[in-house]
Amino acid sequence: MTLVIVDDVRAAAKRVAGVALRTPLLAQPWSERPLWLKPENLQPIGAFKIRGAYNAIAVLDDARRQNGVVAYSSGNHANAVAFAAKAFGVPAVIVMQDSTPRVKVEATAAHGAEIIEVPMADRERVAAEVAEQRGMALIPPFDHPEVIAGQGTVGLEIVEDLPDVDVVLVPVAGGGLASGVGVAVKALRPEARVIAVEPELAADTVEGLRAGRQVHWTPERRARTIADGLRTEPSELTFAHLREVVDDAVTVSEDEIRATMRTLATRARLVVEPSGAVACAAALHRDLPPGRTAAIVSGGNVDPALLAEVLRG
Amino acid sequence: MTLVIVDDVRAAAKRVAGVALRTPLLAQPWSERPLWLKPENLQPIGAFKIRGAYNAIAVLDDARRQNGVVAYSSGNHANAVAFAAKAFGVPAVIVMQDSTPRVKVEATAAHGAEIIEVPMADRERVAAEVAEQRGMALIPPFDHPEVIAGQGTVGLEIVEDLPDVDVVLVPVAGGGLASGVGVAVKALRPEARVIAVEPELAADTVEGLRAGRQVHWTPERRARTIADGLRTEPSELTFAHLREVVDDAVTVSEDEIRATMRTLATRARLVVEPSGAVACAAALHRDLPPGRTAAIVSGGNVDPALLAEVLRG
Repeated sequence: MTLVIVDDVRAAAKRVAGVALRTPLLAQPWSERPLWLKPENLQPIGAFKIRGAYNAIAVLDDARRQNGVVAYSSGNHANAVAFAAKAFGVPAVIVMQDSTPRVKVEATAAHGAEIIEVPMADRERVAAEVAEQRGMALIPPFDHPEVIAGQGTVGLEIVEDLPDVDVVLVPVAGGGLASGVGVAVKALRPEARVIAVEPELAADTVEGLRAGRQVHWTPERRARTIADGLRTEPSELTFAHLREVVDDAVTVSEDEIRATMRTLATRARLVVEPSGAVACAAALHRDLPPGRTAAIVSGGNVDPALLAEVLRG
Repeated sequence: MTLVIVDDVRAAAKRVAGVALRTPLLAQPWSERPLWLKPENLQPIGAFKIRGAYNAIAVLDDARRQNGVVAYSSGNHANAVAFAAKAFGVPAVIVMQDSTPRVKVEATAAHGAEIIEVPMADRERVAAEVAEQRGMALIPPFDHPEVIAGQGTVGLEIVEDLPDVDVVLVPVAGGGLASGVGVAVKALRPEARVIAVEPELAADTVEGLRAGRQVHWTPERRARTIADGLRTEPSELTFAHLREVVDDAVTVSEDEIRATMRTLATRARLVVEPSGAVACAAALHRDLPPGRTAAIVSGGNVDPALLAEVLRG
């Protein structure tokens, strides 16, 4: 199996420049641990997913791209593909699970994509059918080298802005972001520890990395976490990357995720979805190696009622 | 009266680099008007005030600075002076009105400043007394050329990132930010319209600019707005700048401020205090000249309970 290398990430960085926001690293003077946040919630679609989706569409040849793209996703990847397709002026079909929060469905439709809602178990099959019937390119949420390379640009930027970073905290589920970030960080700053963070209610990846082989949890078991962006499991491709580039993996509780959403709102002035709070939750609640720490805030598309509830504590 | 010029702002930019965050301009694809936000709520202290405070302390001669600094403020400037003094390793005394939200008082104390709480009307006098008794330099919140120049770096960065900007929306009260931003923008992009925005419940500046002379509202009348950072009035110095560099001035209602706080949380994923939402509220709710619009989000230090209330709609 060929793994993504840092040159792929560098090539992706050139492609996504001007479409994905070059997010700043935000120093957090209130934190005991020297902490910087990488606020991917500030991307135009509210999540890092724009990077991988845009890169994967950018590498298609022109004729293929003109036919349009199709994606299945729990939300943010959907929005990313719709946004990227609009940027290229090509049609997009998004297959979503029927329990996706309304805020994400509407955001995707607003980019002009056609939405098909199906039960979670049918998403992949329906997307493949649409791709074949309409001659569209399927852009998977993580199981694709150019998606991994695109997400890796987050890691590239962290090392650019904080060359002596010691610890990089990245949320993990499908593993596209953790794979790409790990590839970039370990290539450019091998001394840094790349630590994957997962909700303990969906900790199949952490369990698998510790076991040295992928383990499978049922979708129902993974769906227990509030972090709706982290309910998927790695593919063979991403798991192979994770084994190679992730130094350690830790879990955080649901209460810690909620508390961190509140802390990020009040101390960092960032609106963060549950999945987006997971990496920072580890910085605040886990005993990690010391040193300059960067935590990726992966997304901010949260139901306002949930955010209000969390703010009331 | 000597007004600040763009070279002063450029000099300030060199001083504040590495302390104030070089905030990105955030494109907002959901907005009908082509809109970019300048998220000063992401500054380490949660507001633009770090720019002016740091610049004013940086220009003190060493011996003078070692004695420390004193400031009076409704909150964010206090925090800014405390943060900047800590960065220079010098003592800070902050005189605050006794109705300042706890979140702001505690944030300032956390930077190691000595806090003195007094009724709003006594702030200025007590600060002057402390300055004289202890030989400390008084850093006023806006009535100071180097504070104006520091705040102006926000305008410098807007034009750097969006050279063909057509409309710049800036909140106004004391006028330090609007003065500095206006100086920078009108020098570098004279075609752009600089529009000051004020809560209609504290619209003394808008009324004064329309009348061509400063008008005074009582502190009680200005205190009616939820935008607690915009309850002050310009000084002679800032009013003179505003007359020179502001093209127009508009007001927004309390309901529009609240609605914009909600919109900024859900669509831009930014936690914004009422004062910080005012400029963007004009972009969303006022009939303004067309074109590429930058709205300054001045701060994000909001009571979590108020944010929760606004999110519930």
